[in-house]
Amino acid sequence: MTDRKRVVIVGAGFGGISAAKKLAGKEVDVVLIDRRNHHLFQPLLYQVATADLSPAEIAWPIRSIFSSYANVSVFMGEVTGLDLAGRRVIAGDRDLGFDYLVIATGAVTSYFGNDHWAKVAPGLKNITEATDIRKRLLLAFEQAENSEDPEERRRLLNFIVVGGGPTGVEMAGAIAELAKQALSHDFRRIDPRDARIILAEGGPRLLAAFPEDLSDYTQKSLENIGVEVRTNHQVSDITALGAQIGDEFIPSANVIWGAGVRVDHLGDWTGHETDRGGRMMVNADLSIPGHDDVFVIGDAAHVPWRDGLTVPGIAPAAKQQGKYVGARILDHMAGRKTKPFAYRHAGNLATIGRHRAVIDFNGFKLRGWLAWWFWGLAHIYFLIGLRAPALVMVQWVWSYLFRKKGARLITGQMPGETADPVTPPVN
Amino acid sequence: MTDRKRVVIVGAGFGGISAAKKLAGKEVDVVLIDRRNHHLFQPLLYQVATADLSPAEIAWPIRSIFSSYANVSVFMGEVTGLDLAGRRVIAGDRDLGFDYLVIATGAVTSYFGNDHWAKVAPGLKNITEATDIRKRLLLAFEQAENSEDPEERRRLLNFIVVGGGPTGVEMAGAIAELAKQALSHDFRRIDPRDARIILAEGGPRLLAAFPEDLSDYTQKSLENIGVEVRTNHQVSDITALGAQIGDEFIPSANVIWGAGVRVDHLGDWTGHETDRGGRMMVNADLSIPGHDDVFVIGDAAHVPWRDGLTVPGIAPAAKQQGKYVGARILDHMAGRKTKPFAYRHAGNLATIGRHRAVIDFNGFKLRGWLAWWFWGLAHIYFLIGLRAPALVMVQWVWSYLFRKKGARLITGQMPGETADPVTPPVN
Repeated sequence: MTDRKRVVIVGAGFGGISAAKKLAGKEVDVVLIDRRNHHLFQPLLYQVATADLSPAEIAWPIRSIFSSYANVSVFMGEVTGLDLAGRRVIAGDRDLGFDYLVIATGAVTSYFGNDHWAKVAPGLKNITEATDIRKRLLLAFEQAENSEDPEERRRLLNFIVVGGGPTGVEMAGAIAELAKQALSHDFRRIDPRDARIILAEGGPRLLAAFPEDLSDYTQKSLENIGVEVRTNHQVSDITALGAQIGDEFIPSANVIWGAGVRVDHLGDWTGHETDRGGRMMVNADLSIPGHDDVFVIGDAAHVPWRDGLTVPGIAPAAKQQGKYVGARILDHMAGRKTKPFAYRHAGNLATIGRHRAVIDFNGFKLRGWLAWWFWGLAHIYFLIGLRAPALVMVQWVWSYLFRKKGARLITGQMPGETADPVTPPVN
Repeated sequence: MTDRKRVVIVGAGFGGISAAKKLAGKEVDVVLIDRRNHHLFQPLLYQVATADLSPAEIAWPIRSIFSSYANVSVFMGEVTGLDLAGRRVIAGDRDLGFDYLVIATGAVTSYFGNDHWAKVAPGLKNITEATDIRKRLLLAFEQAENSEDPEERRRLLNFIVVGGGPTGVEMAGAIAELAKQALSHDFRRIDPRDARIILAEGGPRLLAAFPEDLSDYTQKSLENIGVEVRTNHQVSDITALGAQIGDEFIPSANVIWGAGVRVDHLGDWTGHETDRGGRMMVNADLSIPGHDDVFVIGDAAHVPWRDGLTVPGIAPAAKQQGKYVGARILDHMAGRKTKPFAYRHAGNLATIGRHRAVIDFNGFKLRGWLAWWFWGLAHIYFLIGLRAPALVMVQWVWSYLFRKKGARLITGQMPGETADPVTPPVN
């Protein structure tokens, strides 16, 4: 047993989980590290932020995914550095030696140099941020209901979403439906339908990765459910009072950031080349130059694709890369050759509110409610891969289709409450 | 419309909701105040703490309960004082005049003069505390898996529950099942089945309100699923390192407090008499002496019952009182007489782990799995009263009966993470 190789995988997103699954049950020891205890189905995270789903409906304990594979161990901890020469991963005061390393650390929200905006315009990358946004959105309506000041009420009911990519489109649509439908009868002094939802995009159109007619359709659909779409509008400042959008300052208590991501740390940790977004340059087999046993996958990797583009930072791409690298490691141990990684692009899809979507499957385009159903089925298909029991899946569909009241809970510390959290006694 | 009376109800627990429901749709204005936006089904809160249920499965937005009753408005805010002479409720910088006042503020965790224990031994009264306990419980296993120090591992896997009432019994049973069953195959370096769960009770037996044979059965059942029960053991100190139980100091990273409650503020706010636990003394119609238009119900009220006892602080009692007071107010407005409040005690019940319970229905005793099913049906019956759609109820039963992996999420700030929460910009 002592000559078994050890694969360390950093990050339990789609890429890391997928690599670990490929290696589960094989003659190799796998250590999967993540700073959280759960894998997150990130494509549905915006629905936690808009109170449609509960965190537990889109997140699973990493341990439970691998509980039946004795060769996979899970380590909850934060990686603080890499020692490629010494072949070890540094996680706080613990070192983990590796024979193969898979870096699948993903991306973080980027404010393009304006990191101070993070305090007033949260991004949407993990459950804590999602429940925090949920709290802010719901509190805004509560505070508006209580406010005697008409100007302050208006500010509280202005919601600004920055960024016209899928995240921004999905957030804006879901906030509009929350305000105009789900909450519409719940207040007595305000009418939640008076809420303004503003979606600001610096470029000329929404969903720039989609064909132009789908961008147009998306904009019209959003406008139909009450979103004000402002393309060609740069956001140049965000404060606790609102945001400067083009040449107008719009008062708002809720600015949500969906405009960009970057990769942290990897350049520093490895001393290797990254692109402008911090993504690592990789070889054709996703290893990094000079290290045929160190791989980078998912959002953290700069992988050339077609037409001068790179492989997009979406779940299917990360999963393909994870699976490929798992197989590559098995081949390497067996002395077999592996073909270079080839990305198969299934397509792009985005939802617009609860019953519409746009889909572009390599030229096959679909929009409207049929696209929404397709989107739903595609997500169920992915979810099946994560949690085997059909029962659970049915429950998820059920809850998504039929639950009206949703997860509209304001939890955590309340405004004005003394900060006195019970913290775990960490050794 | 201007001569309509206004009823202010403080607190949206079982008592407050029940009073508001009685008055919903009647010729009266109702303002329901709570500092949270949700009503909580508290009897199942321990299952959130032990990762069996998600918060949204046992909590509902107060607004959504009353959305179809235009005469009920909900105000999310914290009451900071009462002015009985001026007939107004003070909530921060807002005043609310009332014609009738219903105080249903419930109870808070009491540490019997040792309030500094709160930091290391959280109670279980709201969702934030429950998810916090969940985080601590799950982190203890993660930290034990990572620890190289056998003594520290043992400390991390010692769980101490203080108090042998229903809360303590239910928590201890659920933690035992979490450790010995749900998590049993998820770790590689520790065996969660090695966890010790210690239930400490100062009195001679568990569930003191139940007949003695059911207390004995409860103790034996808990011991069968791996709980160490220590009756006649006072807890005299709790620190971040463990608890002094009788003459032994047991190292532990997880002490959970289920030993007592008290009522805050009411004596000070009203200048009226309370009992030792801070509960207000009330008249036969639950009004307070000298104010026939001010009522106190639920855990906040000291209501004489039989054999020198007071009405117990349980959900059915609070609901009966809320309904009674709603009717009493309608009678008062109409100039009708109302009979004194008479508590109908349905019985006591408590669960022991996932498949056993004890029930005492005024002498009709039941225990074991049949009692558990009865417990389940009783809770479903109560839940139906809260959320009408049968679909939702079916989903709840489904998820409770069939979901294995549960809600084992560690959310919020991680140990070692910088405290930099995004806080809502409160005006």
